[in-house]
Amino acid sequence: MAVHRLVPTVWHNVLGSVPPVLAVGDGDTVITQTLDSGGTDKDGVRRWHGPNPMNGPILVEGAEPGDALCVDIVRMTPIRDTGYTGSVLAANVVEPERVRGLPPRASANWLIDREAGTVRLEAPPEGLEDLVLPLAPMIGCFGVAPRLGQAFSTATSAENGGNMDYRGFGPGCRVWFPVFVPGALFFLGDCHAVQGDGEIVGTGVETCFEVEVRLSIDKARPMAWPRGETQDAIFTAGNARPLDQALQHATSEMLSWLTGEYGLSITAASHLMGQVVRYEVGNVYDPAYTMICKIEKRWLPRPRGK
Amino acid sequence: MAVHRLVPTVWHNVLGSVPPVLAVGDGDTVITQTLDSGGTDKDGVRRWHGPNPMNGPILVEGAEPGDALCVDIVRMTPIRDTGYTGSVLAANVVEPERVRGLPPRASANWLIDREAGTVRLEAPPEGLEDLVLPLAPMIGCFGVAPRLGQAFSTATSAENGGNMDYRGFGPGCRVWFPVFVPGALFFLGDCHAVQGDGEIVGTGVETCFEVEVRLSIDKARPMAWPRGETQDAIFTAGNARPLDQALQHATSEMLSWLTGEYGLSITAASHLMGQVVRYEVGNVYDPAYTMICKIEKRWLPRPRGK
Amino acid sequence: MAVHRLVPTVWHNVLGSVPPVLAVGDGDTVITQTLDSGGTDKDGVRRWHGPNPMNGPILVEGAEPGDALCVDIVRMTPIRDTGYTGSVLAANVVEPERVRGLPPRASANWLIDREAGTVRLEAPPEGLEDLVLPLAPMIGCFGVAPRLGQAFSTATSAENGGNMDYRGFGPGCRVWFPVFVPGALFFLGDCHAVQGDGEIVGTGVETCFEVEVRLSIDKARPMAWPRGETQDAIFTAGNARPLDQALQHATSEMLSWLTGEYGLSITAASHLMGQVVRYEVGNVYDPAYTMICKIEKRWLPRPRGK
Amino acid sequence: MAVHRLVPTVWHNVLGSVPPVLAVGDGDTVITQTLDSGGTDKDGVRRWHGPNPMNGPILVEGAEPGDALCVDIVRMTPIRDTGYTGSVLAANVVEPERVRGLPPRASANWLIDREAGTVRLEAPPEGLEDLVLPLAPMIGCFGVAPRLGQAFSTATSAENGGNMDYRGFGPGCRVWFPVFVPGALFFLGDCHAVQGDGEIVGTGVETCFEVEVRLSIDKARPMAWPRGETQDAIFTAGNARPLDQALQHATSEMLSWLTGEYGLSITAASHLMGQVVRYEVGNVYDPAYTMICKIEKRWLPRPRGK
Repeated sequence: MAVHRLVPTVWHNVLGSVPPVLAVGDGDTVITQTLDSGGTDKDGVRRWHGPNPMNGPILVEGAEPGDALCVDIVRMTPIRDTGYTGSVLAANVVEPERVRGLPPRASANWLIDREAGTVRLEAPPEGLEDLVLPLAPMIGCFGVAPRLGQAFSTATSAENGGNMDYRGFGPGCRVWFPVFVPGALFFLGDCHAVQGDGEIVGTGVETCFEVEVRLSIDKARPMAWPRGETQDAIFTAGNARPLDQALQHATSEMLSWLTGEYGLSITAASHLMGQVVRYEVGNVYDPAYTMICKIEKRWLPRPRGK
Repeated sequence: MAVHRLVPTVWHNVLGSVPPVLAVGDGDTVITQTLDSGGTDKDGVRRWHGPNPMNGPILVEGAEPGDALCVDIVRMTPIRDTGYTGSVLAANVVEPERVRGLPPRASANWLIDREAGTVRLEAPPEGLEDLVLPLAPMIGCFGVAPRLGQAFSTATSAENGGNMDYRGFGPGCRVWFPVFVPGALFFLGDCHAVQGDGEIVGTGVETCFEVEVRLSIDKARPMAWPRGETQDAIFTAGNARPLDQALQHATSEMLSWLTGEYGLSITAASHLMGQVVRYEVGNVYDPAYTMICKIEKRWLPRPRGK
Repeated sequence: MAVHRLVPTVWHNVLGSVPPVLAVGDGDTVITQTLDSGGTDKDGVRRWHGPNPMNGPILVEGAEPGDALCVDIVRMTPIRDTGYTGSVLAANVVEPERVRGLPPRASANWLIDREAGTVRLEAPPEGLEDLVLPLAPMIGCFGVAPRLGQAFSTATSAENGGNMDYRGFGPGCRVWFPVFVPGALFFLGDCHAVQGDGEIVGTGVETCFEVEVRLSIDKARPMAWPRGETQDAIFTAGNARPLDQALQHATSEMLSWLTGEYGLSITAASHLMGQVVRYEVGNVYDPAYTMICKIEKRWLPRPRGK
Repeated sequence: MAVHRLVPTVWHNVLGSVPPVLAVGDGDTVITQTLDSGGTDKDGVRRWHGPNPMNGPILVEGAEPGDALCVDIVRMTPIRDTGYTGSVLAANVVEPERVRGLPPRASANWLIDREAGTVRLEAPPEGLEDLVLPLAPMIGCFGVAPRLGQAFSTATSAENGGNMDYRGFGPGCRVWFPVFVPGALFFLGDCHAVQGDGEIVGTGVETCFEVEVRLSIDKARPMAWPRGETQDAIFTAGNARPLDQALQHATSEMLSWLTGEYGLSITAASHLMGQVVRYEVGNVYDPAYTMICKIEKRWLPRPRGK
């Protein structure tokens, strides 16, 4: 269970079956520094172009289609004192007639106080002078190569993960992706210092992080959509438009999980989900929207065979 | 600021301009006992038919179109020891092909322990034997008469409120509805002992409550969609299909609130919403879905003139 | 089978259970002159307010819930030499970011040459100087009172019809509405001299018509959504958002029709629909969108018992 | 302007930047025989796997990003006497609760009479014994490599074309695709002998064709979505979910076309589109739905500079 340090010299704007830049073993740890979503590094040097340049892909030896790739987000350390955000609500999240009144799209700089663990606007507009937000690191875009030789822009997401922009994908979170190609081919980038639900200005606070992840293989654990786990809850992610369909995917995947690994009947799973489920919104900005379906562990039965 | 006790003898299955059964003054309190969503009372007697029979309407003297009706949910006391739920996920919340595998729709009984403040299934299926949920009372359907002489089924929702099934509408919550007709005409019913996000089995734990609300008028406070406030946050509600459009309404209403009463520019409001907004899902079962857009008060500037 | 001439003095902006202004027998004919969608009559006098003031309702004696009201559109004669249209694409029919570039909403006048049967812009912009369109009369909004005591704005549509804005609803078309209340309560108005698919500027060429319809009752003919028939085809109408759901309703209703009255199995109906169905778009402007599902009669089997 | 005969030995299940199998000049003609959507050839031999194996890609010398690739569908000759279809309506085109009643998915064989130019079910169910449909050949899936190194499954569609399943893509139709990579990389396959709107059983009559296309380059003709032309009309194609968004893309592209090459103001284009536009539905089965926005040439002004 080695520790690898990945220092990229090229990046990718797709999640696809491109040649791996690193091969690791089941259970290995990878430490790597990410560019911001526009391709600028921690020193302010533009190293690549957007959207969302990815570190990787990392081949995980032994991963096969039908397995799940387990990604533990061990640590996310901010490595730059600045970030940027879009400064106007996205046209697709307001009522269509309201778009006429939106100001032109622009971006704004944020200052990241790594000592204090806070972020604030460099030049706050009137009324936001006192707005200081706690750092809440998250990975905006990560996932594996999709099926069939497909390759998807890092501006969107699908069954293989991608640009889900869910603020729950932070340190301490464990995520599983369905494996579609041998070696899984794991990609990672586009980290945010903080982000509201929906990524409704088109960005979080975009900056650079050193990220530490542990990659391991759950053999023969088929899943249709990404799954995740925190200390307190399990969750699934559905990626599609409209949001209704993203919700259908996330809900169906949770149903599969509960009836599969937890051994509940559809009726039992329905009872449980019906009264305790929580939905959370990933992004509603990208071509595919992201909906999270979550259940607190305290309500779950013991998984089968455990 | 009187206290009124409303004991209905008829109920309504629409929110519309039907004759009021009670007239109250600005700031008065109303205490009333609700039927369950199928029309059965606390004693198990079927008093009315579904969907969601409403107590009311209550005319609030002095309320005029352009005002907002402020509803404080003061208290919700469960008054029956049983509730019921749908026992299968709704067809519209799973992937279409998954519907083929769902069992037939049925309902299940729940036991409500008013002393302990808990609910549990009367006959739990395997795996849910230990599932005991805390009581979390909420109003499923409430609102005012819509504009133009319209009347909407209590199975759906719109600008005037209605069947939003948001679990945040519980004791301690303050809600504002836009007033469309003189007197506002307030309706209330369909209370749940507990409910997951989305009301994805088509029900919460449906039962009867004694509800105490305080009704007051915010003069000349136009709003397009319901707004709310808890101890810690403000929120807006959008009701439409698809969920994307419900989100657009809720987001636009929050933008109006922040740029109106809080005096932010659109850019400032965008910055704030972009990094701190939270979305919560009301129901995704009814003809109109409900999305909540929420901001914690600790991030808000001081409202204008306060 | 009498002929009635309805000369309204009041109009309605909802389809609901309001008192009828005329009672007719099964098979009777009604002739009536409509206001334009803004409430102006053939003489340019503003008689009512928008949206879409309706003539009616007309009670059809003997119609009961579970029956269908059959409406034959016998004749539509334009009775004014002018019409008006919206002059900008609706915000909801273009990509959200494109809304920023749209000019402000305005309206434009059209001249109707009743002799020649043509319409043209009064002041055509550059490039449209030669645009002369053939008159293609259609009823924008018609239908019956909905179930449950509901009342819906004439700006939208539902199971009971309403503002469907389908250009196929012209002379020679037969339409059936499901009857929800005794007497059906038929409404009619909002006629257009011409209109493109989708009503994407928010209007057709809005003007006044003398309309002749024949109203008859198909006893015990349940249907969930409006159905129609032309010389060459049968069709169904679904009204909802998103357009996908409108399409689901229209498709499901056609499936019901083919498996019911035409006696096909679901598989046979699927084969037929799969290879010969045509979809047409009513409006994509109103709160509910309208999708038409159509099959040419030449592909249909003989209906049962005929 | 050479004529090339392309005889594939490999096929592709994605549209992406894979190595070309043929390079042709601007204006050249290509003749090629396609497999059916499942990968079977004209002799009944399974040559490749689904979904929708593509012939190509064909590199068109001189095509550059920013150009448009013009594809003239010159001829489609059926080369097999059998085809197959799905035999049940897709779950996503009926109301969700209706899915419970659908029979299991299956397929059915059709006989193609190339002499008579007709197709009919091999074993028609009761009521369809006399159903004989005229051959109406169309290309289900064609397009070019997408931007950014992406590669999309031939089961879906996007800005670069793909599996649009629009029955208008038949002989005599001219189609333009935006070029994203040098040489354009054109793919073609999945032809249907006949198909209803929406491809609502998941297939048309799937069979093999010899297809003759002429490929030429329109230099520096940017477009965001595919465009097309028939003898009588011009049209645009939008591919997305929900159908509303596909319609927004198609409508926006038509607006761009009219304000660009036809020189209309947005207002003039709105007037024209508002009163004469026609929408047609491509597929509503695939991950992305397809909507066509069409205008008859007789209503168009003269294009700029022509």
